[in-house]
Amino acid sequence: METNTTICAIATSPGNGAIAVIRLSGKDAVSITDNLFNSPSGKQLSKQAPNTIHFGSFQINDKIIDEVLVSLFKAPYSYTGEDVIEISCHGSVYVQQKILQTLTENGAILAQPGEFTLRAFLNGKMDLSQAEAVADLIASESEAAHKMAMNQMRGGFSAEIGKLRSQLLHFCSLLELELDFSEEDVEFADRAGLKKLVLDIHLVIKHLTDSFSLGNVIKTGVPVAIVGKPNVGKSTLLNTLLQEEKALVSEIPGTTRDSIEDVISILGIQFRFIDTAGIRYTKDTIESMGIERTFAKINQASVVLLLADVSCSKDEIMQQIEELKLSNNQHLIVIINKIDLYDESEVELRLGGKKAFAPHPVLFLSAKHHLHTDKLHELLLESVQFKNLNSSDVVVSNTRHYEALKNALEASGRASSGLGSNLPSDLIAQDIREILHYLGQITGEITTDEILGNIFKNFCIGK
Amino acid sequence: METNTTICAIATSPGNGAIAVIRLSGKDAVSITDNLFNSPSGKQLSKQAPNTIHFGSFQINDKIIDEVLVSLFKAPYSYTGEDVIEISCHGSVYVQQKILQTLTENGAILAQPGEFTLRAFLNGKMDLSQAEAVADLIASESEAAHKMAMNQMRGGFSAEIGKLRSQLLHFCSLLELELDFSEEDVEFADRAGLKKLVLDIHLVIKHLTDSFSLGNVIKTGVPVAIVGKPNVGKSTLLNTLLQEEKALVSEIPGTTRDSIEDVISILGIQFRFIDTAGIRYTKDTIESMGIERTFAKINQASVVLLLADVSCSKDEIMQQIEELKLSNNQHLIVIINKIDLYDESEVELRLGGKKAFAPHPVLFLSAKHHLHTDKLHELLLESVQFKNLNSSDVVVSNTRHYEALKNALEASGRASSGLGSNLPSDLIAQDIREILHYLGQITGEITTDEILGNIFKNFCIGK
Repeated sequence: METNTTICAIATSPGNGAIAVIRLSGKDAVSITDNLFNSPSGKQLSKQAPNTIHFGSFQINDKIIDEVLVSLFKAPYSYTGEDVIEISCHGSVYVQQKILQTLTENGAILAQPGEFTLRAFLNGKMDLSQAEAVADLIASESEAAHKMAMNQMRGGFSAEIGKLRSQLLHFCSLLELELDFSEEDVEFADRAGLKKLVLDIHLVIKHLTDSFSLGNVIKTGVPVAIVGKPNVGKSTLLNTLLQEEKALVSEIPGTTRDSIEDVISILGIQFRFIDTAGIRYTKDTIESMGIERTFAKINQASVVLLLADVSCSKDEIMQQIEELKLSNNQHLIVIINKIDLYDESEVELRLGGKKAFAPHPVLFLSAKHHLHTDKLHELLLESVQFKNLNSSDVVVSNTRHYEALKNALEASGRASSGLGSNLPSDLIAQDIREILHYLGQITGEITTDEILGNIFKNFCIGK
Repeated sequence: METNTTICAIATSPGNGAIAVIRLSGKDAVSITDNLFNSPSGKQLSKQAPNTIHFGSFQINDKIIDEVLVSLFKAPYSYTGEDVIEISCHGSVYVQQKILQTLTENGAILAQPGEFTLRAFLNGKMDLSQAEAVADLIASESEAAHKMAMNQMRGGFSAEIGKLRSQLLHFCSLLELELDFSEEDVEFADRAGLKKLVLDIHLVIKHLTDSFSLGNVIKTGVPVAIVGKPNVGKSTLLNTLLQEEKALVSEIPGTTRDSIEDVISILGIQFRFIDTAGIRYTKDTIESMGIERTFAKINQASVVLLLADVSCSKDEIMQQIEELKLSNNQHLIVIINKIDLYDESEVELRLGGKKAFAPHPVLFLSAKHHLHTDKLHELLLESVQFKNLNSSDVVVSNTRHYEALKNALEASGRASSGLGSNLPSDLIAQDIREILHYLGQITGEITTDEILGNIFKNFCIGK
């Protein structure tokens, strides 16, 4: 963790654009730029006020590379907490590369992935979970993922965890004190207060670990498979869902958007349709084709939509459900299509009502005529237990946080029951130290170079 | 040309990056941003000093989209000459798109390609040729192209043309005055002075039009074809040239670089090797294969390298040169390869010396052993009449400028000879008005919406 250097990187997306931004951070950021920057006023950047912008030419001796705007930030009031310079140049790849090369020839070194944010963390500008949210924010593709990352970056649950942890730290030091004076059998730490605090912490951690499955869904999307016999309308259903989605999306010209084919976004949650072209009931049963390949596909799905025709009998559908051999983690929605051809209540009656396939919900719709397809949206959302995220909602989406929280949850459970059965202080203290350790890992109070290395290697360069 | 609006666009390269910049320009740029930007200080941007940077959150009501840095520029001290805001946000495509969308929902309109630079031109921040150089600068891929665009953007020949034009304008008004008083037969305009000025202008324009072929070469590169019988070493020569180039190129990790395959850059000029895989002398003559296709390929080349073996006779080579049927615009370099196998002076003597194929230069080398290949670099540069560009060198690379200059050159030639043969003032005045017109087109004193439309439609959005 060498932070005595001055790092530089192109901070904007690679390629040609109208402008590009090259960023420097470190103790020599200002002096390196001063040697290469020539302002019409002739005034050195080091003499300028912070948070100001300066026009001039970036040049090596008399050779002008570009006319640029230089933004000046002074420690500690910058992203990294160090002196920071941002050079806004013309967005030619040649110019960007030339400026970067010139900076490295004049004392700056190329930044590693995430090194700017790593420095921000090391300089106390943000905690570790906030730093991780920066990468999530940049990678976020949907409204819900963006909102979740933004919450986390702005403090999210780390503020709450930090508060609880510092209260716990106080108790822990009292407990340690008791251990020092163990022969005198005193109690510095108020057992009732400690018990309440450990329980509070346990509940908060429980709430957070419970939110992980939703957090994960928001971050990565929900894999969905549509299965059913030929001609029940699988393609029509998918097209209907995609078309409704496309109509909802307001496209802005000039902005690129990843292909939205086979992905629909409902209230910000992305549902990704697995390519189930290979899943067909060629004869009557799913077993008539390469069964392993089929099940492998279906196994990837969190939600399976089993599509059947109004003409199917209840037994036929029950048999299909059985053949799917779904695990407990998978949600099944039974869909009876082409309801426009029959009387809905009659079909419902014949199949055994709305609870005929309980615990799996059943939905009567017409994909072709967009009948009741809005209810499918609701069922999809229910399947991931989604409630609309509020700014105050706290959701864990990071696997590293989840692992630490699970460990803290175990330790707090042990501490809680230990306190209940009046276990000796040294055993309680051991569990509490463990809670402190795992909570500290999330926000970065407890960390190692290895943890930091793993986190920041996934960042892009320039961030 | 509606400039009463406030325009916005993403200014950085599309896609995910560490940061992205969204730019607004126009009378409402500050107030629109003020409605959406929330600084911790609570101070409105409109109350802040220009050229300052402000941290805060970009939000719609209470919903935070991102934490951003806002740069504030006030008219006329900005790129466009209008109030300009630059919003530096996290470089997620989602965030960029959301901010842009929010700006358009709050009074800004999406900018057309080049509209920021168009406004800079309309507001007198730069002349038309400087505005055009901005696009060239962004597109420049080589050192020479970059230098040329930079020269033009910083004034280039437009300053010189502007000076000459305003002197000519002065004479022209005197000539017009003479026409008003034509019955009195007076001469307000000093004929000797006018004659000298017109000649000066003619020479400057001649110099500029002459530079166009070089300018074009710098901008677009030189197409080169290597031809020769099988096994004379065509591939070896190309590989040798490419390897030497690659060794010269210092690669910076983390920056993308277009494939340099089959392109070599000598002193900043790009030589692009046409795929001549199809050009082979299958038997003895070029005619033994699809002759039209072969000639079409060779016709694309500005420079043809005819490669022959040391064992070839002079007659054989002469015959091959004839068969190439090159036009006067094409440069031929005769290369005798595998010189390491024989005594060089002996081969030279046998073939008839260094002028044996005059006016075409001949070069004895060994591609395999990198012998004399540096001389090939020199010959390639000579073929495009390249002299190393200095910052003060003026080169025309823009076809629009070249057309205008050619017309101005004709008019100045007529005016010059008209003045020499004492033609009547009204005829002279007509030619001089033409010179003024065409020179004015280059810098934009004379322009139409159509010309502007054609120029700026090729810009990227956000510039």
